[in-house]
Amino acid sequence: MPELFTVLTPQEAWLRLEPYLSPVGRVEIIATEEALGRVLAEDAIAPSDLPSFPRSAMDGYAVRAEDTYGTSESLPAYLRVVGEVTMGNPAEITLSPEEAALIHTGGMLAGNANAVVMLENTREVDASTIEVVRPVAKGENVIQIGEDMAKGRALLPRGSLLQPQDIGGLLALGIAKITISQRIKVALISTGDELVPPEDEPKPGQVRNINAYTLASLTSRAGGIPLRLGIIPDNYQALKEAAERGMREADIVVISAGSSVSTRDITAQVINSLGKPGILVHGISLRPGKPTILASVDQRPFFGLPGNPASAMVTFDLFVTPSIYKLGGCSQPPKRYELKARLTRNIPSAPGREDYVPVKVEERNGELWAEPIFGKSNLISTLIKADGLAQVPLDKAGLAAGEIVLVRMF
Amino acid sequence: MPELFTVLTPQEAWLRLEPYLSPVGRVEIIATEEALGRVLAEDAIAPSDLPSFPRSAMDGYAVRAEDTYGTSESLPAYLRVVGEVTMGNPAEITLSPEEAALIHTGGMLAGNANAVVMLENTREVDASTIEVVRPVAKGENVIQIGEDMAKGRALLPRGSLLQPQDIGGLLALGIAKITISQRIKVALISTGDELVPPEDEPKPGQVRNINAYTLASLTSRAGGIPLRLGIIPDNYQALKEAAERGMREADIVVISAGSSVSTRDITAQVINSLGKPGILVHGISLRPGKPTILASVDQRPFFGLPGNPASAMVTFDLFVTPSIYKLGGCSQPPKRYELKARLTRNIPSAPGREDYVPVKVEERNGELWAEPIFGKSNLISTLIKADGLAQVPLDKAGLAAGEIVLVRMF
Repeated sequence: MPELFTVLTPQEAWLRLEPYLSPVGRVEIIATEEALGRVLAEDAIAPSDLPSFPRSAMDGYAVRAEDTYGTSESLPAYLRVVGEVTMGNPAEITLSPEEAALIHTGGMLAGNANAVVMLENTREVDASTIEVVRPVAKGENVIQIGEDMAKGRALLPRGSLLQPQDIGGLLALGIAKITISQRIKVALISTGDELVPPEDEPKPGQVRNINAYTLASLTSRAGGIPLRLGIIPDNYQALKEAAERGMREADIVVISAGSSVSTRDITAQVINSLGKPGILVHGISLRPGKPTILASVDQRPFFGLPGNPASAMVTFDLFVTPSIYKLGGCSQPPKRYELKARLTRNIPSAPGREDYVPVKVEERNGELWAEPIFGKSNLISTLIKADGLAQVPLDKAGLAAGEIVLVRMF
Repeated sequence: MPELFTVLTPQEAWLRLEPYLSPVGRVEIIATEEALGRVLAEDAIAPSDLPSFPRSAMDGYAVRAEDTYGTSESLPAYLRVVGEVTMGNPAEITLSPEEAALIHTGGMLAGNANAVVMLENTREVDASTIEVVRPVAKGENVIQIGEDMAKGRALLPRGSLLQPQDIGGLLALGIAKITISQRIKVALISTGDELVPPEDEPKPGQVRNINAYTLASLTSRAGGIPLRLGIIPDNYQALKEAAERGMREADIVVISAGSSVSTRDITAQVINSLGKPGILVHGISLRPGKPTILASVDQRPFFGLPGNPASAMVTFDLFVTPSIYKLGGCSQPPKRYELKARLTRNIPSAPGREDYVPVKVEERNGELWAEPIFGKSNLISTLIKADGLAQVPLDKAGLAAGEIVLVRMF
C-alpha cells in the first residue's frame, strides 16, 4: 500500500497539531526547594512585603536626609552618633535632629532615619561625632518596604518554568510549598523486526534499538517521564496492543517506526484505528524526517517518527519536545539556543524543503563558522560529532559557503 | 579591620584560580542509559563496526551496480527479481549477473550486491522482472560496514558531557555500562546574624536565607550535589567549624557571607586559617560581586561570595559553575547561551569594571532588543523578571541606547 503524503511545511504541520495540545492539568504540591525546572500550576502571589522593613543598601550611617542638605567637603555637617544598628535586630534607636546611627548593609533603618550616608562620605571626628561631606536625598541607599516584592503582587505567573532565582524569590517570601504541574509521561514504542535490545549481540541483519534511549533522554531533558514500552514486532496487532498500553499509561505516545514503508503503513493504520481525530499530518517537507506522522487520539498527542536514529531525534526535537511543554502547562519553554554562523562549505538542499544538517561551530577571528559534518545523513555518529543542526530554510535550493546559517545548538 | 582589596578583572581572577582546579578523579560505573548529562571518565572506543553488515539506505532493489551502467528512461536495464531481503534477517540471496533483490531501508545487502536502486527509479514489468531507468554507482545508497563507527576508533573522548545522541551511539555499539566521573559535592554555608530559615517568619531586622537554595539550584544545574550546611552566626569560631565540615564532606566550599564588612573579614580570616595557599583573589572589578573571594585550601576550591542574593548568583555563575565542571573532569562544559541585542536604554557603568545588568530580551521587527530591568541592583525580583544578564565590558564607562550588548541568557 503506498503512503499518501500530504506534505506540509514544518511550520504548517506544527500549526495543525497545536490546537490539540491542551495542558493535562494534573498538579502536585512539592517543597519549593525541590522545584527547579518544574512548571508552576498557579500564580505565586507575594503574601507579604519584601523587605518587610526599610533596609540599608550600604555600610554607613542612618541619618535624616534633611540634616545633610548643603554639605560638602569644605562645609561638612556634624552629626552625633547615638549607636549602632546590629544585624538581625530591630532598630531600637530613634534619631533626633543632627543624630546618626552606624548601620551595616541589610540592617534595619533607625527610627526617624530616611537615608543612609555611605561610610566613604563620612569622617570620624571623635568617638561620638562624624562629619558628613556629601548630602543624601530622602530614600538614598535605602531599600523601602515592599521595594523588592510588594504584598499582593504576582511574583510569578502560572506556567512559569522555575529557575534558580525563582526558587529564591518564593522562599524569600516564605512560600515553602508550591503547586506545580505533574511531569508529562511519554510512552516510547520501537518497532522493527531488525531491532534487538542494546545489551544483545545483533545477528547479521539486526541492529540495536537505540531510539528508545535517545528519545528517553530528550524526554527527560524536557521535564517529562519516559516510559519505554520495548521493541514491538512489525505487525498490526502487536503494535496496536502496545499503542493501547501507551494510551492507558502515558500522556503522549511516540512510535519510532521501523524504517521500511510497510512498517510505517502499519503505524498509520494503528493510529487511525485508536480514536479520533487520528492522523493530522502525514509527511513533512523536512530532511531528515519526511515520513513523520503527527496525530491526536482521544485528546492524546500521538507521533509516528521515522525509525532512523538521527531522523527520530530531529523530529522529536521539533514536534514532541514542544508538545511536552504544552501539555505540562509551561507558558514559556526554555529559549532554544540558536546562533548564526557562516558556512564553511556549500550545503545542497531542495526548495520547498527544510533541511537540518549537523555542523560543528568554531570561532575563527572573532566570527562563528559552521562546518558541516561529512557522512551520509542519518548516521548517529554525525550527530555525536556535531555541536548543533544548521537549518536550510524552506525557500532555498541550498546554501553557499560563506552564507550565514541559523544553527540550533544541542 | 579594613578589607584589603587587590582588585582584579574577572578574567584575571579566573586565571589566578584556574591552576588550582584539578579533576577530583573519583569515578563510578553506571548504566549508559542513565548517563545523560554525566561526564565520561575514559575514552569510549568502538568495540565493533557499526553497521556490522552493509545496509541499504533506501527502499529499493539490491543490485550489482555494473548491471545498471548506461541505463536511462529510454534504455532501461531489465533485471530478474530473485527474492526479498526481509528485515532483521541475514540476506540469504546471492545475486548472479542481471539479478536484483527487493530490499527495505536498513536491510542487509544481498550477496554480490554492491548498490541499491531506489524504488522510484524502477518499474515493475512482471512479477519477477523490473526495469531500472537510472544507473547507480558502486556503493550508492549503501551504508558500508563501519561507516557510522569503525571498530577501534574513539567514539567519545574522556571528559565528554553526555548528550542524548552520545547515549545512543554508545548503546548502538552495545556499550551498556560506562565509567563516569562522580558528581562534585558543593558545601553551601550561609552566614549572617540577620538570616532565618525560609520556613520561619522573620522578625524586624531579619530576612530569610535564600542563597543556600539559589546556589543549590545552580549547583544541581551544573551536575553537582549541593550540601547545605545551614546558617552560621557571624563569628569566627562557628564559621571555622562549618568551613572545616565543608572541607571534610565536599569538594568545593562556598560561603555566602553576611553582607556587612565585618562578616566578610571573618570569612577571609577563616579561609586563610584553614590551609594553603588560602586566598588567591580578594576583590574583583565586577558589579555585582566586587567583594568576592576566590581561594584554594588543601586542593579544594573555596569561595567567599557576597551575601546579597543577586551578587551571590552572578558570582557563583561566573566562578563556581566552571569550577564544578573542571573538578568533574568535563572537558567541554555546555556552551553558555549568549546572544547579542540592542539596548533600549543607556546603562551607566565605570571604566575598569565589568557590570552585569538584568535585561528582558524581546524581538522587534526581526531584531533582538535588551530592556534593562529597573530597580535597585541586587533585588532578587530584578533577576526573576529578567531573561538574562547584559554585560557591560571592562573598558566602557557605560553603554548607550541602541548599542549592541552581549547578553548571557538564564
